[in-house]
Amino acid sequence: MIKANNPALKSWVEVPADSDFPIQNLPFGIFRTESNPRPRVCTRIGDFIVDLVVLDHMSLLEDCDIPHSAYDNEFLNELMAQGKEKTRTLRNALSEILQKDNKEAEKNGWHFLHDADKVEMLLPVRVGDYTDFYSSIEHATNVGTMFRDPNNALLPNWKHLPVGYHGRASSIVVSGTEIKRPHGQTKPKDDEPPVFGPSRLLDFELEMGFVIGKENGLGNPISTEEAEDYIFGLILFNDWSARDIQKWEYIPLGPFLAKNFASTVSPWVVTLDALEPFRTAGPEQEPEVLPYLQYKGKKNYDVSLQVAIKPEGAEETVVCNSNFKYMYWNMTQQLAHHSVSGCNMRVGDLLASGTISGPTEDSYGSMLEISWRGTKPVKMNGGGERKFIADGDTVILRGWAEKDGVRIGFGESVGKIVGG
Amino acid sequence: MIKANNPALKSWVEVPADSDFPIQNLPFGIFRTESNPRPRVCTRIGDFIVDLVVLDHMSLLEDCDIPHSAYDNEFLNELMAQGKEKTRTLRNALSEILQKDNKEAEKNGWHFLHDADKVEMLLPVRVGDYTDFYSSIEHATNVGTMFRDPNNALLPNWKHLPVGYHGRASSIVVSGTEIKRPHGQTKPKDDEPPVFGPSRLLDFELEMGFVIGKENGLGNPISTEEAEDYIFGLILFNDWSARDIQKWEYIPLGPFLAKNFASTVSPWVVTLDALEPFRTAGPEQEPEVLPYLQYKGKKNYDVSLQVAIKPEGAEETVVCNSNFKYMYWNMTQQLAHHSVSGCNMRVGDLLASGTISGPTEDSYGSMLEISWRGTKPVKMNGGGERKFIADGDTVILRGWAEKDGVRIGFGESVGKIVGG
Repeated sequence: MIKANNPALKSWVEVPADSDFPIQNLPFGIFRTESNPRPRVCTRIGDFIVDLVVLDHMSLLEDCDIPHSAYDNEFLNELMAQGKEKTRTLRNALSEILQKDNKEAEKNGWHFLHDADKVEMLLPVRVGDYTDFYSSIEHATNVGTMFRDPNNALLPNWKHLPVGYHGRASSIVVSGTEIKRPHGQTKPKDDEPPVFGPSRLLDFELEMGFVIGKENGLGNPISTEEAEDYIFGLILFNDWSARDIQKWEYIPLGPFLAKNFASTVSPWVVTLDALEPFRTAGPEQEPEVLPYLQYKGKKNYDVSLQVAIKPEGAEETVVCNSNFKYMYWNMTQQLAHHSVSGCNMRVGDLLASGTISGPTEDSYGSMLEISWRGTKPVKMNGGGERKFIADGDTVILRGWAEKDGVRIGFGESVGKIVGG
Repeated sequence: MIKANNPALKSWVEVPADSDFPIQNLPFGIFRTESNPRPRVCTRIGDFIVDLVVLDHMSLLEDCDIPHSAYDNEFLNELMAQGKEKTRTLRNALSEILQKDNKEAEKNGWHFLHDADKVEMLLPVRVGDYTDFYSSIEHATNVGTMFRDPNNALLPNWKHLPVGYHGRASSIVVSGTEIKRPHGQTKPKDDEPPVFGPSRLLDFELEMGFVIGKENGLGNPISTEEAEDYIFGLILFNDWSARDIQKWEYIPLGPFLAKNFASTVSPWVVTLDALEPFRTAGPEQEPEVLPYLQYKGKKNYDVSLQVAIKPEGAEETVVCNSNFKYMYWNMTQQLAHHSVSGCNMRVGDLLASGTISGPTEDSYGSMLEISWRGTKPVKMNGGGERKFIADGDTVILRGWAEKDGVRIGFGESVGKIVGG
């Protein structure tokens, strides 16, 4: 067992029972404060942010052999690039600093702790390339059923390779950033010319993303066996989508403006290490996949996922409860496939799952599916209903894994839509 | 007229008559030398590289108000981010330094000139996001004719918007980099399962790319009128493509592994300023496009383009002579469309044209079209023939604009395919 994962560990920092951030989590992020606006690396425990720049200045991270510039940095990239051995040592060191019996650290806590409510969390990673997969069989089946043929919902290639496409990295923003409703070209009526205006079918997509922490170099594929060494950690990912723009633009080269106006990530990168206890077997793959996509062991993760919509001035309504474990294609397969062409991964690259739908209607990961193309509006707790996302709506993604009394959470991905 | 574009100007550096790099060009690149391996900014004249770090140390660039770090840099991004006014001043300053009557500079030339054969040219730009369009009507018509219906070759959206998709930035490499033949999944026989192996239908795509020099910020579309202020310059771009991988993978989300293993750029970014004399009207667009895509003035550029294949140990064969002026959608339209969703451009982003085919068979910009899906093999000068690209083949892209005795060239994009 990774030392920092021990469920028996307790911290001298009081952690609320329902917190996403017990001492067994210790995710990484980037923050700044009003009094010190320089972005820098932090972890979190309970309702507190832990400043790693200060910890390093206090010589508490000396054993990690990580340069100070990796903490005093606007992104996690340099830290991740240190490699798993060092970042694992760092997470264990953070755990020791925060453990209940560490009276010395507790005494000095006021030097490095900040109230989480009083800091600004920033985009954690400088994303080089962002790739989006389409790896939930329930989602792909729903989309195929709606737009093509219920009896042949999956396209011929779907069970042979993890279908994916390149997305836009520049418009990935951190939780809390307001999103302007995108404008674009749509074709509402088949027999009339296209029109220009704000998207009328704005949607979220419930996804998880994983962040690359190691380079392979051009021309050097990564095997499924090696893949986990390249995965630093995971985030929540809302891949905002304009369905009406997508429908008109996407043939034959795929989604473009329908997806490139914004994606919202959670501020916390939860390490793959912290998720180790939550491994689970994935769905059986039939037909058998080609050798380069075969894998051994449990490569899915049991992470509960939730989406809520909060209209302006009203209470939220949970519209989806899904789980990361439903993925048909796992991360090691996605990474092996992506690089088998020789494509090079760089530290900070982000690979997202695609919409994660579950088998039941209340587990669908997009309004397209939840409202079944707008034919089944969703009742909102505060009154009214939704087919898609309205101006003033805030969409909140949540994710957490729970076992043996330990809850490893991702925090939230929050985005409010404002009229354009 | 931009001062540095004056066709009457001559340099004290002797420039061969057929050179791509007379004093009216002055493109930007990144180089290093054996004696000084630090990457830095340069321009080129005739057969010589001009070291801008040295020019700045000699106080010859003082009037440009550009920080030294923008020259002493491994990429052009910081220089481009200075804005057009400053980079135009810089190009004019370089012109004055190199003009025939500048005896003082000529005397000191040995301080800042390097034999072009003796330096290593590097990737000029740190590409944030790379986007590929599909904007040649001849190419789209050829592809539609081959794979769909000759009578309805263009898809319904094609004349209403510049179709494009997000590509892979990490695998963009500079001219001279060897390219491993990609492996991947293909489905050679319709009634048999897919197989894994090296691509058998490896192709080039003759493209041009433009580099972004100014940010717009998320949520702020760029109009066609503003677009040229965001375009720093142009490069040659070979968008290597594995046709057999593409065919099996690309439905419904577009090309992925078929394109992400490598793209080869020329080492020189030719400024939009230098191409000013070569503006030309684009094709008439019918039906009329939506207002956000309308533009005024000449927005196409008359740039001759050529592709040659040089088999291992044999002479080259020119397989294509095309021209950038054929583009149906121009760069200002591509940029206006790309950003109309609110998508943000960052300095260094690269937007490529898509394959540039002309109206005649000898002007097609890919082997797919030249050999018409392999049905019309091309005879090679040294014997043999080609349907697609063979191991050991070097593919060379060239581009130049010529008028009033002035030839503004791009140099070459060179890539050799090696067996994987």
